Parts: sequence; C-alpha cells; structure tokens
Amino acid sequence: MGKKILVIGGVACGPKAACRVKRLDPSVEVTIVEKGEEISYGACGLPFYLEGQVEDVAALTTTPVGVPRDVKFFKAVKGVDVRLNTEAVAIDRKNKKVTVKHLKDGGQEELEYDKLVIATGSSPVKPPIPGIDLEGIYCLKTMEDGTLLKQAMANASGKNAVVVGAGLIGMECLEPLLKAGFTCHVVEKLPFVLPALLDEEMAAPLMKHISSKGVVLHCGEGVESFKDDGNGRVSKVVTEKTEIDADLVLLAIGFRPNVQLAVDAGLEVGRMGIVTDAHMRTSDPDIYAGGDCVASYNIVSGSYMYAPMGSTANKHGRIIGNNLAGWNSTFSGVCGTGVCNILGFNVARTGLTQRDAEAQGLQTVTSLCPAPDKPHYMKGSKLIHLKMVADRYTGRLLGVQILGPGEVLSRVDTAAAILKVRGTVEDIFETDMAYAPPYSPAIDNLIVAANVIQNKMDGLINSYAPREVKEKLDKGEDFILLDVRTPKEVEQMKLPYDNVLYIPLGMVRKKASELPRDKEIVCMCKISLRGYEAARMLEEAGLDPENIRLLDGGIVAWPYEKIVNM
Amino acid sequence: MGKKILVIGGVACGPKAACRVKRLDPSVEVTIVEKGEEISYGACGLPFYLEGQVEDVAALTTTPVGVPRDVKFFKAVKGVDVRLNTEAVAIDRKNKKVTVKHLKDGGQEELEYDKLVIATGSSPVKPPIPGIDLEGIYCLKTMEDGTLLKQAMANASGKNAVVVGAGLIGMECLEPLLKAGFTCHVVEKLPFVLPALLDEEMAAPLMKHISSKGVVLHCGEGVESFKDDGNGRVSKVVTEKTEIDADLVLLAIGFRPNVQLAVDAGLEVGRMGIVTDAHMRTSDPDIYAGGDCVASYNIVSGSYMYAPMGSTANKHGRIIGNNLAGWNSTFSGVCGTGVCNILGFNVARTGLTQRDAEAQGLQTVTSLCPAPDKPHYMKGSKLIHLKMVADRYTGRLLGVQILGPGEVLSRVDTAAAILKVRGTVEDIFETDMAYAPPYSPAIDNLIVAANVIQNKMDGLINSYAPREVKEKLDKGEDFILLDVRTPKEVEQMKLPYDNVLYIPLGMVRKKASELPRDKEIVCMCKISLRGYEAARMLEEAGLDPENIRLLDGGIVAWPYEKIVNM
Repeated sequence: MGKKILVIGGVACGPKAACRVKRLDPSVEVTIVEKGEEISYGACGLPFYLEGQVEDVAALTTTPVGVPRDVKFFKAVKGVDVRLNTEAVAIDRKNKKVTVKHLKDGGQEELEYDKLVIATGSSPVKPPIPGIDLEGIYCLKTMEDGTLLKQAMANASGKNAVVVGAGLIGMECLEPLLKAGFTCHVVEKLPFVLPALLDEEMAAPLMKHISSKGVVLHCGEGVESFKDDGNGRVSKVVTEKTEIDADLVLLAIGFRPNVQLAVDAGLEVGRMGIVTDAHMRTSDPDIYAGGDCVASYNIVSGSYMYAPMGSTANKHGRIIGNNLAGWNSTFSGVCGTGVCNILGFNVARTGLTQRDAEAQGLQTVTSLCPAPDKPHYMKGSKLIHLKMVADRYTGRLLGVQILGPGEVLSRVDTAAAILKVRGTVEDIFETDMAYAPPYSPAIDNLIVAANVIQNKMDGLINSYAPREVKEKLDKGEDFILLDVRTPKEVEQMKLPYDNVLYIPLGMVRKKASELPRDKEIVCMCKISLRGYEAARMLEEAGLDPENIRLLDGGIVAWPYEKIVNM
Repeated sequence: MGKKILVIGGVACGPKAACRVKRLDPSVEVTIVEKGEEISYGACGLPFYLEGQVEDVAALTTTPVGVPRDVKFFKAVKGVDVRLNTEAVAIDRKNKKVTVKHLKDGGQEELEYDKLVIATGSSPVKPPIPGIDLEGIYCLKTMEDGTLLKQAMANASGKNAVVVGAGLIGMECLEPLLKAGFTCHVVEKLPFVLPALLDEEMAAPLMKHISSKGVVLHCGEGVESFKDDGNGRVSKVVTEKTEIDADLVLLAIGFRPNVQLAVDAGLEVGRMGIVTDAHMRTSDPDIYAGGDCVASYNIVSGSYMYAPMGSTANKHGRIIGNNLAGWNSTFSGVCGTGVCNILGFNVARTGLTQRDAEAQGLQTVTSLCPAPDKPHYMKGSKLIHLKMVADRYTGRLLGVQILGPGEVLSRVDTAAAILKVRGTVEDIFETDMAYAPPYSPAIDNLIVAANVIQNKMDGLINSYAPREVKEKLDKGEDFILLDVRTPKEVEQMKLPYDNVLYIPLGMVRKKASELPRDKEIVCMCKISLRGYEAARMLEEAGLDPENIRLLDGGIVAWPYEKIVNM
C-alpha cells in the first residue's frame, strides 16, 4: 500500500496538490474531502456568470473540452478519490486521523492519513451588523451563491442594489448589477474604493469613472444596520450618514481564511491565515496547507499578508504536490498582484502601495504618470494612470498601481516579474518591453514612471504629490503654481486657484527672469513632463533649485477640483 | 562657452540624446544636423497612417498636445539648435570637425565638436535586383515614403500589390493594403514569414491566418527581377518559381544601419552596425552612437545583433545624454523583443528562438503551449500559441514566441523582464502575474509553458516536437500516436495517419494494459496537457518510460496536415 494522503478542500489548491502528487508518485492513495456539492470549479468566474460572459454556469465545472470535473472524472483521469458533501470536523494529529461528517446523513467517520493537506479556503466576512441575516442579502463565494444571486437579479427593473464593501468582488459585480437594470449604491467604510489595493490619489479617477456610470458611492460610511421590510426581507441599508433603499444587498466586505480546523488542531495560525513555511508546510511537518486558508508571504514586504487568489492557490497546490511526493520544493511568495475590470476601467496593482510601504517604515520615492497607453497619434490610444513606488535609497521597485480605460495587464505583469527578482527602477528601464504603435508607446508608461523615479533619485527634480500641493493651497501658502500648458489646453481645463500663473512652455526660457526669486514655484502641465522641462529651465535661469518643485502627474492626476470646459 | 555637442541625425536617438544632455547640463551647446525635412517624427506610425489609424500624418510630427516638433520648438523648449536639410558627409576626428552639406543649395561647411553623437539611423535594404528602380516600387521608412505610398494606394480597386519580404514592416502593411482594396501577395525568400522572429512551427498558424484573409504567400521564393511595363513602371514581380502581376510593390526586405560615415571616419563597425560599448561610446571616446545605426548587444546571447527599434533608440539617447553630461551611465542591452499585429493576429517574440539558440551551440529545452488567453469559460477567450525556449541544464529562460488572436503583450513583456535579469523558468512560475477571468487564466499561459519545461527538466516527460513526429511518420516508422481526446473532438479534427490510436483519457487507465509494450507510444490530445496525463498513466501501468513520449502542443500546434470537420 502506498502512502495515504488526505486533502481537505476540493477547489483550486486541494485538487491541484492531489493530482500533482498522484502524477509524481502513482503509488500514493489520495482522497479529497469536500463539504460542498461540487469539486474543482472556477469560483472566480461567478461575477462573469452573473454578467453573462459565462453563458452556462456548468462551464465553471467542466474541463475546456466540456468534460465534467466530477467524482468520476477525478477517479478515472486523476486516480484520486473524491468525497463530496463531506466536511472535515476535527484533526487528530497524534493518531493522524481526520473526523469527517457526511452532510447528507449526518454520519461521521474517521479517515487516516500519512500526510494531510488543508485547503479549506475562505468565507465571506459577515460582521455582526443588525439585520445581516435578512432575506435579500447575498454573498458571492460558492456556485450556490452564484445561482441564488443570479435568480435574485432577474426582474431588477427599477430596483435598488446596494453593494457593501468596495473590494474586488463588490466592484466586479457592479457591471452585472447595472446590466440587470439595478440602480446601484456602494457603501464602503474606508474613504475610497479598493482601499486594500490603491493609494487614495489613485482611487480618485476610478471613483469618478464609477460615478459617471450612475453608481452612487458612499465612501467613508460604515453600515450600521439593515432594515427589515416587516416580512424578514431587507428594505434599507442604514449607514453612519444615510439610509439607502435596498431590494438586494451584496455583502462584499472581503474574505476570511477558514482556519478553525487548524486552530482546533493546535497548528500555528496568524491573523492572515494558517502559517506555513516556504514548503507550504504547517507547524506540523505532516500537514501542508495552501490556497485561501493560508497567510501568504509577501516577497516585497517580507511579511505575511492575506492574498486569496486562484492563481496563487494553484501554485501552492503544485508545491504541496511536489513535497508530498518527497521532493524538496519551495515557493518564494506573492506580491499582492491584483487586476479587475470595473465598468470598463482596468485596475491593477502589484507590490506595495505608498501607504503600505510607509506603514512598514520604508522610505519611498514615487512617480505619478497619467498618459496614453499607446502613441498619442493612434486613434485607439486610451489613458492610463500609473503610480510607481520605489525604495528611495536603492531604487528597488516596491509596487505599481495602474488604472484607466487603457491597457494595464502588460505593465502590472512586467512589474510583478521585476518585484519577483527584487529588481530596481533601472531594471525596468532596461527591460526590453515590446514596442509597436498598436500596443504601446516607444517609451512605455512603465519605463517613463521608472525614469521619473530615477530622475528624482538623481536629484534632477524635487516634486510634490497632489495631496501636498492641496495642503499648501488649503493653508493659504504664498507660492506660484506655474502651469506651462498651451492656452488652448488651459481653456479646456484648469485649476481653480489664484496661485496659478500661466506661461506656455515655449515662453518659459524667455520669461524665467521675470519670475519672483523669493517664492516657491511649483511647475505643472497636463501630466508634468513639460512641467519637468520648465523646472529645469528655471534652474538654468538661475532660480534657486530649492524653490523649484514639480506637481507630480500634472492636472490629469490632480484628484481635487478642476474647471472643465471640454 | 560650454562644451560643443554635435548630433548627427534627427529622429529618436539623436533628439533624445540632445535634449537629455541639455536638461542635465544647460551650459552645453547642442546642435542637431538632419538631412531630411523633418525632425523627431514617429516613423513607426507610418503603417498606421497608411491604414487610417493615424488620421493626419502631421500627428507624427507633433507633441501629444499638438505642438509641432519643429526647429522653433527645439530652440524654444529644448534649447537645442536644429539644422534641417543638412547632411553630415565627413568626420575629421583628429580636428574634431564634421563637414556638412546644405542639401538645398549644395554648399558645405565645417562644424566643430567636443563630443559627437552619430544617430544616422537605417535605410531600407535594396538589393541589386534587375528592375528595382522601376516606378511603382516603394519603401516605407521616411515621412516622404509614407506620403508617396499613401497616394499610390488610392484607387487600388482590382489592383495587385506585392510585398517583398515577410518581416515586421511588410506584415504590418498587409492590413492597409487589403483595406485599400488591393489583392495582396507576399514574396519571402525564406520558407516562412517573420523568419527573423519565429521558429518555423510557430510561423505555421500565422501563415494559415494570413492566407485565410486572402493574401497569397510565396515563401521560399526569392525575387529574381521586376518587369517593366514598357513605360518604366513595374508590371510583374518575377520570383524563382512564378511571375506575379504587380501594380504596386512594397520593398520590405529589412533595414541596414547607415554606417558609411562611421566607416569613413575609421570607427569600429561590424556586420550589425557601429560597434559601441555599454556606454554607447564608439571606438573613439569622443564619439557616441545609438539608435538604428548601431549593433545592439543581446543580453541573452551575449553577442551583437541588429535590432532597430524606436524603443531602444530612445533608451540609447538617454544613456548617451547622461554620458555627454559627464555621468557614467551604461545600458545592458536588448533581448530582440518585437511585437506586431498582422491582420488581427498578435505576434510577439523576445529572446532567442530555438533556432537562434541552437545555432549558438546552446542546449535547449522547449515547450509548445496553444491555449486560450483567458479561462475557457469566458466568452471573449481567444487562442494563443506560446513557445518557450530555455537552457536545458539551468532552466534559464532563453526566449518566448507568442501569437494568435488572443492577448500576447503581457506575456512577452513579463518574459522580457525575466530575460533582463537572467531568470529561470522557476522565476516565471514564481512571478505573481495578475489574474482575473477577463484578463488571464488562473495559471497563466506563460506559467504553464514554464511548468512544462520544468517537468521536462525534472524527467517527468520526454517529448517530441511536431517536426520530429512528422519525420517519423514520413519515414514510415512503426509507432503509436495515442490520441486521448473525446470522440466528439476527434470527429471535429484529426490527424490523417494510420498510426493514430484513439483512447479517451478517461479510459486510458483501464486500457493501458492492452497497449503493446514493444512499441513507442507518442501521447497527444488537443494541446497535450491530457497527453501528459496519459503518458504518466502508461508509466504507472508499467510501460517502459523509454517508450513513452508526448507530442508537444497536441493537435492544435500540429503544423502539418489535419482533417477538419467543424
């Protein structure tokens, strides 16, 4: 008899580990226990099932050629036994047994193991808010959740949907809700959307976009309660500031790792999930854990984070499978990469935000580069906002945030590769990114952002973030905002402050001598490339470099008031 | 007076170097001489001007906000003197002078320099084929070329265009030529399209796509002559095999670095262009060179290559600018990355092809992975073919080729970042690529390809490339091609060989014992993921691993005969 391997959890990591070890060592006996009705389904596809991008929900449970990934399939093809509707309720580490409960008949039995894999996944966060169990309040995690929500979304005409939580799942569901005909509200306790992914200034253009689609954002307001319509159904969402009519509520506050089993078994469990080493081994050397139930090591910060992603879960599964087969295989960790499409806006992040990095005590240097994703002369070029964060001393890349209607995927993946190898902004500059006008500008947005950081590190420019300039304006400080755009551009859009002085870039050399030498001058343009040139010109003209600053990202990245006449 | 810097060449590298040094050190005097009428134009945009993606050709010569990048602009904004219609004809290195010719009046003068930059670009290859100077034969390099070609393309209805050379520019121009109404032919001396970018098996699906759009491909046929219509206009292209009616010919055989000036000055010049060190310094320490006239150091191969790209030219310009300002700045080189859109097919390459690598004596291991670019259940998912080449001993990534209707940019850029840092397939696996169903599958195509290579390196599978299996078939070898697809898939598409045995994957475990033990069995499926599983099952069933092989890429990547009933 071969080694007995028991896997708890039948989605992503669990089946991957099970199949991998069986391929490497056919002598092992592998059993997966799964408490649900289904195994190995594409849970990440649920928002797109709601939207209609996935025509049949069954596609989420079949292979690419339409073969159902069911118990029979796993036996015949993978050589793996699967038990559905079977919940693991206790681990007896001493005797190497797991007690499982048969959910159909309530019976229990004990299953022996030589090696155990915990892949229990995650559950939606459901805080103890009054009324949270009312009818009409949905989560989106399982296939059943998806089917129920899809039914509930039928006949939405004139109805109100409230999404609680502006994280990835909540934001992805705006599209299907709007498409179904709902009026949509989003309630988010923190002051901006995607707070776990973005810095506030980067969330600003996204929030503007979401609002432009008719979604009402209520950021900085926690939910206090859900009101009953008198028949056990939700009728209103009560926030700290207002009450919102609600026919349907999607609870999307986030996910929490399912760790109870591990906690009860005395395994090491942290705030971010079950703790493993790089082998995906728990504090018990015979027990591995992976997927959404574990804490992920962040290779940028060097600390654990919670990053439940289907992509990572599959990697965990492969590493666990290797180690179950007796290999010595490690996984170096994640960068917290994420991407999503929010009503046609692409949003991506990898690594640390400036906020994350500074909270860790890192010294950062950042760049803020809004620009077209292709050469400006191409009809199809679209704006993307890019923020890059690097370590101020070494130039090591710490993270990027990229969003807009334009292409973000190639930039975030390239940055993720650089993060993986602990590369610097110079490595980005030297990456031979693909260039052709239908795809990207000659100097890619990512490389521009790296060059801006390099220029700052080389002392060529001192800059302010938009927030810093706004604070100076709010305090009534006496300084000049030198806007070097063309008169036509100024006519279309300008900042509503008395501090602004307009000199088109072509005139700056001539007029530099007329500028006051005792005031701080903050140069800017549309995206602050010309602002940078202006700053260099002022310095050339003999103004004190200490008095010259750049407004990062120019007027396009300015997240506050603007006067627009387009 | 500041240092005198003279720059020869006014597109991409030259202006970049000029502006960069002026920003870093305003005391320098910078002059650019350019023999053409225009400076700093987006030459790469010309095919898209022909196609209509660029509405006004003027957009190629203006800044993103519509300011013309002309002599006045360079003076006022950049502080740089530009002399147009001024050709450098000789470099006197001893006296540090360049003789320039004023093309408008034929006059000459000598310009002094302290530091010189050669950025003379490239010219279309025009081999001495009889008739090559006939009317109706065009190149596409300069703004003037673009304007002439656009005029020539008007009223194309019923006319024949012949593109000579299946390189990047020729392939990019198929779209505008078809759109304009031409019947298109492509003549390529080598046996497949994009021969400098792709391995032959990867060119196969692209050639099928091009043919499906009505373009007639004549690969493996050199042009012998162009026939005169009697009035000095081209009427036919005569190849080694046929004659093709031609109303318009686009000569797109490639580009050659403009090195004559450097050669005459006694600078070191190789077959790939002017030779520089990593500082972009020529063999004369006071002369820099960059852009399309230099040989590029390939960081993967460690040897020089010719890789004229606008992206690289801009990087050269920045490095040269830094060094002109007295910094000590180096550029590590390129990977030969390229991307283009050919009639809706995306094609990308970075690093070495298998052919390149093996020609260098490297031992390679490859994977061939055709698969959807997004989860199969998403309506918008599209096929991409991906070939990865790695070093067999270390797993160091050597290159990828990616093509198809699906997304290629994020994969090629990620691979380029890994190449930059000399990473391995394991680094690819560990790159935290962005995952969400609208963008990519949970295990990205690039990661799948890396895992396949890792599996091969770990001895889990031995495989054949399609070419190797075809050779065995052609030789009439006695072996089994075990196709493990479902009966429905087989009905839709199959290989026309007697060697094929059909056993759906789910039956392989049961039927393994019935298979002959003395024959080689080559497992396959649609893309050979199931083929891999079948191979593992046969091994588990006790068949000799030496007799079990995998057909890389399955039937989808099979570039030879197929019987299709879709």
